[in-house]
Amino acid sequence: MSLPTKSTLVAVNEPPTYEINATFDQPESTFKIVEKEIGELQDGQLLVKNLYLSNDPTQRGWITKNPNREAMYVEPIGANDIMRSYGLVEVLDSKSETHKVGDIYMGTTYWGDNVVVPALFLSLKVDKSVPLPLTAYVDWVGGTGLTAYFGLYDVAQLKKEDVLVVSGAAGATGAMVVQIAKHLIGAKKIIGIAGGQEKCDFVKSIGADECVDYRSKDFSGDMKKALGEDQECDVYFDGVGGEILDQMFSFVKRRTGVVVACGAIAGYNDSSKLWVKNWGHIITRRLNVKGFIVTDYLGEAQKAIQAIVGGVKAGKIKVDNTLHLEDLSKESEPLKQLPTIYNKLFNGEKKAGKLLTKLADPIN
Amino acid sequence: MSLPTKSTLVAVNEPPTYEINATFDQPESTFKIVEKEIGELQDGQLLVKNLYLSNDPTQRGWITKNPNREAMYVEPIGANDIMRSYGLVEVLDSKSETHKVGDIYMGTTYWGDNVVVPALFLSLKVDKSVPLPLTAYVDWVGGTGLTAYFGLYDVAQLKKEDVLVVSGAAGATGAMVVQIAKHLIGAKKIIGIAGGQEKCDFVKSIGADECVDYRSKDFSGDMKKALGEDQECDVYFDGVGGEILDQMFSFVKRRTGVVVACGAIAGYNDSSKLWVKNWGHIITRRLNVKGFIVTDYLGEAQKAIQAIVGGVKAGKIKVDNTLHLEDLSKESEPLKQLPTIYNKLFNGEKKAGKLLTKLADPIN
Repeated sequence: MSLPTKSTLVAVNEPPTYEINATFDQPESTFKIVEKEIGELQDGQLLVKNLYLSNDPTQRGWITKNPNREAMYVEPIGANDIMRSYGLVEVLDSKSETHKVGDIYMGTTYWGDNVVVPALFLSLKVDKSVPLPLTAYVDWVGGTGLTAYFGLYDVAQLKKEDVLVVSGAAGATGAMVVQIAKHLIGAKKIIGIAGGQEKCDFVKSIGADECVDYRSKDFSGDMKKALGEDQECDVYFDGVGGEILDQMFSFVKRRTGVVVACGAIAGYNDSSKLWVKNWGHIITRRLNVKGFIVTDYLGEAQKAIQAIVGGVKAGKIKVDNTLHLEDLSKESEPLKQLPTIYNKLFNGEKKAGKLLTKLADPIN
Repeated sequence: MSLPTKSTLVAVNEPPTYEINATFDQPESTFKIVEKEIGELQDGQLLVKNLYLSNDPTQRGWITKNPNREAMYVEPIGANDIMRSYGLVEVLDSKSETHKVGDIYMGTTYWGDNVVVPALFLSLKVDKSVPLPLTAYVDWVGGTGLTAYFGLYDVAQLKKEDVLVVSGAAGATGAMVVQIAKHLIGAKKIIGIAGGQEKCDFVKSIGADECVDYRSKDFSGDMKKALGEDQECDVYFDGVGGEILDQMFSFVKRRTGVVVACGAIAGYNDSSKLWVKNWGHIITRRLNVKGFIVTDYLGEAQKAIQAIVGGVKAGKIKVDNTLHLEDLSKESEPLKQLPTIYNKLFNGEKKAGKLLTKLADPIN
C-alpha cells in the first residue's frame, strides 16, 4: 500500500476568535481545514493514521486566550497551529527505533487524517495480544482510567475505611473513579455528584452508594443526607471546580481530608465560574489540596492497566455503558465535524461516559 | 486585696451591624460596653485580670455575618455576646486545680477588665524564671511565633536548600516567618512580600534576602527578578490570600511546591477580595496546598518557645522592633478604645509588627 502524501488537518483560525467564552459550535470561525504536504520524515518522527480521537476538557485550555498561558503545563496552541488531541493511532511510517510500522499507540496526536508526530508524543503501546477493544485505550485504560487509578491510589491514597465523594461522577473519569474505588479498593462509602436523575441512576448502577444531584435546590442538605452519620468525607475527588468545589470544602474531613484537584470543567467556557470563594475553608478546616495531572504517572501506566483490566475481566468494572462514540469513519468530510463533536463536552449533548470520535479502523 | 465584684465588658451590639464589609471604627454601632456582676466561680472557672490583649485578624471572622459560620473552627460570637480575644492574663481567683492565683497565662480571654473564663481557655503558662518581657508571650512566643514555627517546620517542612516566599512579611507572623527561616533553619533564599518601601526595608533588615512590594505595577516581574535563577520557590507561606496568592501560584515549584495557607487578611473587610481566580494553576502545576491553624500545635508549644527564645538570646532573632504597643493602662475608660485600636489592623494605621493593647500591669 502506498503512503499518503498529503495531510488534511484542522487548524486554529486567524485572527484568533477563541476568547475564554467562545464556544466550539462554530467551526468556521474557531477552526479551519488546511492541507499540508507530507515531506520526508525527520529522525524521531512518525507518520500515523488517526483511528480514534479522544475529546477532553483539558484541550479547551490549550487554545484559550489565557493571560497565564505560561503557567500551562503543555505548549499552548496559537493561531494557524494544528489542534492537538489525545488519540489512538496506527504507525504508517517511522523514523524511530522504538515505534514500528503497524504498531498502535495511545498518546498525543493532531486533529487530521494522517499526521506527522514526534515518536515522543506516543508513549503507550497497545498490546494486541490482550483481548480488549481498541476504544478501551482511549477510554478506561487511557488517560481516563489512569487519572482515576493514580488519583485514588497515589494522590488521595484512598483506603478501605474511607468515605469518598467524586464530582462529575457520570463523566469519563468520574465513572472510573467510582468503579475503582468500589471494586478495586472497596471504600466504605462512595458518593457521586452528577447532574440530573438519569445520570445519578447511572452513577449508582456502577457502584456509588449515593448520588447527589448538583442541580438540586438544596445541594448542601442533600450532601449532608448522603453522608449520613459519616458527616464528612476523607477524600473529595474534584474534576469540576467552581461552585461545587466551594460547597464541598465544608464536607471534607478537618485536618486529614484530601481534595484531589484534577479538573476544572466548570470554568472551561467561563473562567469566572471557576473562582473559588471559600478559600478560607481550606485554612479553617486544615485541608490538604493536591493538584494532579496524569501525565506524571505514565511511566507506571502498566500496573494501572493490569489492575483495571483485571477488574473488567472479573466482571466488576463495567466499561461498555460508559462510551459515547461518534463514528465518522464512513463520512465524506469527517474532519469538519470534529469541533462540533468536541463541543458536546460543554453544551450538554454528551451522554454518560467517554466522548470518543472514530475516524478509521486500523489497516493491520 | 479584695477581689473585684463587677466586670466591665465589651459586647457585640444588637441588632448586629457587623456585616462582612463593616469596619470597626464605629464602636458605638458595632460594640457596646456592658457591666456584669461577678458571681461565685463554678468548678473549672477562673477570675482573671486582663494585662495585654492581642489584636488578630482572625477575630474578624468570629463576629462576621458569615453564611458559612458552621465551617468556622471556633464558636462564632453573636449579638450581645462578649467579644473574645487572645491575651495575657493574671489569675485573681481560681476554681481550677492547675491554675493558681498569681499565675500569668496566655490564651483566650474576653474584651473587659476582669473577666471570668474557663481554665481550659488558658493553656500556656508564663514561666517567670525566664527573663523575657511579658509582651513576648502575646507576640513572638504566642500565636505569632508558634504559627511561624509550626508553619515552617511541620506544615511546610522547610529545608536549608529551599527558597521561601512569605506574604505579609512586615506583619506580626510574617516577620517571625522571615526570622525563623533565616536564623533557625537557614533557608537558601527568603523573599518577603510587603506594601511599600518602608515595610520592605524593615523586612530586609530582619533577614529577608529580597522584598517585593505588592503595590508595584509589575508585581510579577518584580517577583521574577527576586527569584532570579531559582525561578520558583519551594514554599509559599500565605497569610494574605486573594490577588497576591493568585499571582504566587505561578511561582511555586511544580509537583513539589507547598503553599501554606494560614491566613486570609485580604478578605476580612471584603470577602470578594479573597476569591481565588487561578485555581487551575493548582492543578496544572500540581501544587500542594496545606491549610493550617496554630491551635492544633499548642500541645507541642514548649519546643517552639525554646527554639525561638534561643534565637532571641543568641541575638539572631530580633523582637523589639516588631511591636506596636497601644498602652491604655493609664486611661480612664480604656475599654471604649478597644474596637478603634483593633481596627488599625485593617485601616493601614498599624505599624510594622504585632499590634498589642496593654490594659494593666500584673499585681504580683
